[in-house]
Amino acid sequence: MRLSRYLPILDWGRRYKVETLASDLTAAVIVTIMLIPQSLAYALLAGLPPEAGLYASIAPLIAYAIFGTSRALAVGPVAVVSLMTAAAVGQIADTGTIGYATAAVTLAFLSGVILLLMGVFRLGFLANFLSHPVISGFITASGVIIAASQLRHILGVPGGGHTLVEIASSLAGSVMQTNPYTLAVGAASLGFLLFVRSGLKPLLMAVRVPEKAAGIVTKIGPVIAVAASIGAVLAFDLGARGVAVVGEVPQGLPPFTLPSFERELVQLLLASAMLISVIGFVESVSVAQTLAAKKRERIDPDQELVALGASNVSASLSGGFPVTGGFARSVVNFDAGAATPAAGAFTAAGILLAAAFLTPLIYHLPIAVLAATIIVAVLSLVDFGALVRAFRYSKADFAAMAATIAITLVIGVEAGVSVGVILSLVLFLYRTSRPHAAVVGQVPGGEHFRNVERHAVITSPLVVTLRVDESLYFANARYLEDRVYQLVAENPEARHIILMCPAVNFIDMSALESLEAINTRLASTDIKLHLSEVKGPVMDRLKRSHFLDALSGQVFLSQYEAFAALDPETAKRAMAGAER
Amino acid sequence: MRLSRYLPILDWGRRYKVETLASDLTAAVIVTIMLIPQSLAYALLAGLPPEAGLYASIAPLIAYAIFGTSRALAVGPVAVVSLMTAAAVGQIADTGTIGYATAAVTLAFLSGVILLLMGVFRLGFLANFLSHPVISGFITASGVIIAASQLRHILGVPGGGHTLVEIASSLAGSVMQTNPYTLAVGAASLGFLLFVRSGLKPLLMAVRVPEKAAGIVTKIGPVIAVAASIGAVLAFDLGARGVAVVGEVPQGLPPFTLPSFERELVQLLLASAMLISVIGFVESVSVAQTLAAKKRERIDPDQELVALGASNVSASLSGGFPVTGGFARSVVNFDAGAATPAAGAFTAAGILLAAAFLTPLIYHLPIAVLAATIIVAVLSLVDFGALVRAFRYSKADFAAMAATIAITLVIGVEAGVSVGVILSLVLFLYRTSRPHAAVVGQVPGGEHFRNVERHAVITSPLVVTLRVDESLYFANARYLEDRVYQLVAENPEARHIILMCPAVNFIDMSALESLEAINTRLASTDIKLHLSEVKGPVMDRLKRSHFLDALSGQVFLSQYEAFAALDPETAKRAMAGAER
Repeated sequence: MRLSRYLPILDWGRRYKVETLASDLTAAVIVTIMLIPQSLAYALLAGLPPEAGLYASIAPLIAYAIFGTSRALAVGPVAVVSLMTAAAVGQIADTGTIGYATAAVTLAFLSGVILLLMGVFRLGFLANFLSHPVISGFITASGVIIAASQLRHILGVPGGGHTLVEIASSLAGSVMQTNPYTLAVGAASLGFLLFVRSGLKPLLMAVRVPEKAAGIVTKIGPVIAVAASIGAVLAFDLGARGVAVVGEVPQGLPPFTLPSFERELVQLLLASAMLISVIGFVESVSVAQTLAAKKRERIDPDQELVALGASNVSASLSGGFPVTGGFARSVVNFDAGAATPAAGAFTAAGILLAAAFLTPLIYHLPIAVLAATIIVAVLSLVDFGALVRAFRYSKADFAAMAATIAITLVIGVEAGVSVGVILSLVLFLYRTSRPHAAVVGQVPGGEHFRNVERHAVITSPLVVTLRVDESLYFANARYLEDRVYQLVAENPEARHIILMCPAVNFIDMSALESLEAINTRLASTDIKLHLSEVKGPVMDRLKRSHFLDALSGQVFLSQYEAFAALDPETAKRAMAGAER
Repeated sequence: MRLSRYLPILDWGRRYKVETLASDLTAAVIVTIMLIPQSLAYALLAGLPPEAGLYASIAPLIAYAIFGTSRALAVGPVAVVSLMTAAAVGQIADTGTIGYATAAVTLAFLSGVILLLMGVFRLGFLANFLSHPVISGFITASGVIIAASQLRHILGVPGGGHTLVEIASSLAGSVMQTNPYTLAVGAASLGFLLFVRSGLKPLLMAVRVPEKAAGIVTKIGPVIAVAASIGAVLAFDLGARGVAVVGEVPQGLPPFTLPSFERELVQLLLASAMLISVIGFVESVSVAQTLAAKKRERIDPDQELVALGASNVSASLSGGFPVTGGFARSVVNFDAGAATPAAGAFTAAGILLAAAFLTPLIYHLPIAVLAATIIVAVLSLVDFGALVRAFRYSKADFAAMAATIAITLVIGVEAGVSVGVILSLVLFLYRTSRPHAAVVGQVPGGEHFRNVERHAVITSPLVVTLRVDESLYFANARYLEDRVYQLVAENPEARHIILMCPAVNFIDMSALESLEAINTRLASTDIKLHLSEVKGPVMDRLKRSHFLDALSGQVFLSQYEAFAALDPETAKRAMAGAER
């Protein structure tokens, strides 16, 4: 029982049936066809030779099938992680060198080990500190950078850069050398892929193709573009006219590679590996959870960390680069009927066959077509509308998202996501350091108490109640003191101050000292301090201090009890429903 | 009116009266007598020549008198800031060199500018992020380090070090060279000062000296020790027997000094200057607030930043080093009747006279006596009892305090306070990421709802209410989803889930998306999601999103209303007071 928790394959493998095999195989065939051009394209994006993309789509899929808990997740190279790989490795070595490939393999290894450690120590909750606005802003900005970085392949010009600024200035310098044949191939495939994405499905459904099948056909559009463009290169001898093609890709099984353990390299890559791990995990786990929810299944996020860790370690041992669960391919896998992780293992077999036998076929594949595949894939990631929604809903969320987008575009992916996380934490801390606090009164005709500024409630000049809408801790302890003293100054007749605490989830030592100071100071002016609606866990803790002995007033279970005890007449009048 | 806010002297200066002059002068004389040995001692602690201590007690006091808002605060060199100065400057230059003095002056300048900027931009709230446990732990550990660092002067041996480990190993190597005459002088003055501190006041009160006067006399004990030890050195020619004395101290006005603006030096000192600024501000403002509260006065923390900034800049221009408001001397100032900041200016005049005329008198003052003064002063800072209180009250507060103490002692003051601040923030974030959430039921005979596990309350199988005791934000959004799904699994009969939100102080975009996911998922199993007791500001924000349109259930003003509407029978029964 316990072992199957760490090796989910023992669980689903034991109950594997023939019907499942059929649907898993079908799904695997479709995903394989979809994954071949994607793998080649993302290897290009990561700055690696095309075969690295195929290699990264074999062993990692098998590792995930053994350790993963999602039935539909398809792992492999994905756009954002490939971009982050290019950014991290590009700072260390030049594309095409052995150092570059070694660094990529090492990055996958480090990222795998980090994920495994997070899984073993059950640190999956750390991913919760990446807020939605930060993730969404980061992915939008990454999509823009990726699309921009592929433009040079569409134009057939040299160039580079990891930020929008670098890419734009590089393009500006080389755009005059545009190769018209490359541009023609690139633009045509871009147009075709965009049509397949948005126009083909309605068209197929109009001719009564079932929706699911139509959806799947649109996902294999890139394969059609690949085949057609290879035909065009051969027919018109475009290679001789300057259209860059993939060229020779080694035929055979993935090589056995070893990461470098050189201390300097590891130090340079460690921070990037951490970011890639966390971003990859968040992306993968949210896809897996979405798909699991559709079938009322659950995934285990900590075990997902182990599975992704194993996938990355296996990528590093077989000539790959960092991988994670991809959104589009997982949805295709799910829609095509994948019933168990075995579908992933079958997909791996499909890619293995491709690597072993099909690579000569892609010699003439134009790089512009791969670039077009990438551009169309990442355009769906870009969602500037989220920025508008965030602006409407919360300025803090908007600020975090806008900062993440701006810094990712201008400074780089790692700086962008780091600043986003730090900013969202700082904004949260700032918000809790200036809590909302309301003076409350009794809602006529009931025992309920609400804000005097928002509701027609009944108050007493003798008994003033302040509801503090935040846990009391060091950052707002001083603020609480100021607020209470101000309240006393505004209500010279008050003889009782009640702190109503339904929203106080804990009181730390700093705040306890502030409460003691408030109690002493109020007592010296003959005002009693009371508490009401103190929660159980908070009360337990207060009982372990001396505060309750020193408290000049009492602790009441409910605010109504407190009000009724300290000013019975007003409370009775309010209960009777008198409007003030 | 506005100008006097930034120059409080315009306010109190205009209304200055003769009676006030008398009490200010009395206080100034007493504080001057107390401050002379203290200034010399803290200069020694900071690694500077004794006159630097006198200089740091002249111009800064005048600057504070002009800009400060506290009537009793006495600024000047203090123990913890002097220790931090020694730690920061000691990494850059050797004690006694010109570079050391320049670095100290530059540190004061940087710290002054930082404080001024914080004041101008009203960033005083940043100090709130230093929790009590961190400050208290840091001051305890600093006290231990300071006392340990002075032992070598009591023994008359060479040595150094900025951490307890360094100091101990340095002492271990030199303790065999102890000078018996120095030890005799040091031990005698230590014993005398300890007696003055704890035994003299009761003795004086026994012979009917008024309590306040007795308190003040005990504070000038160090002056008696200074005078007596100078006499002893002269009488027994202790200088020739190896007792280190202060030696020649330049006689005259403070010099005009300029900080260095060398980029490298500024970069090296900047982080230290920030820490010194914040720690100095927290120490000073808490003394000022305590004393102001006793007289029902208020201080303005942001103006205090400006005043401390001006004090430090003026210290840097007159051969001083970083200063702040000191606890002991401010209490003496207050008890001696200081009525306005003019007392500080008069104290400055007193120290100026001492620097101009009295320095030849302290030629023969043994350094061991200054060390004894420091040790006795800092022993009152050490409070390991706080560690026990924190342990009893809250493990998180204890962890922050223990880590601060341990790292300050072993690694250093700057690391200690930094780790303490970061750890307390991380623990806070961790706590809010796993909020307390309770299933609640109706307290019989009323409209109040409490935790089913703590109170005898009435519940309904049909309507399950979860009270989430935390604001909903990105770090706990996923946790909330898990908790609700678990609740649904545990209550198969439930048709309504109410999220009771009195403790939810805001809902950010990430949490909003989780709520939408919960709503959709519950709706697909025919369970309605309701909210109750949503606060005004939270409701305002929800209205700006599409969540309320999609919500399958309703939003109720009070939890009782919700329960009564969804399961009227049970609610009525509960209201009637039936025990379950």
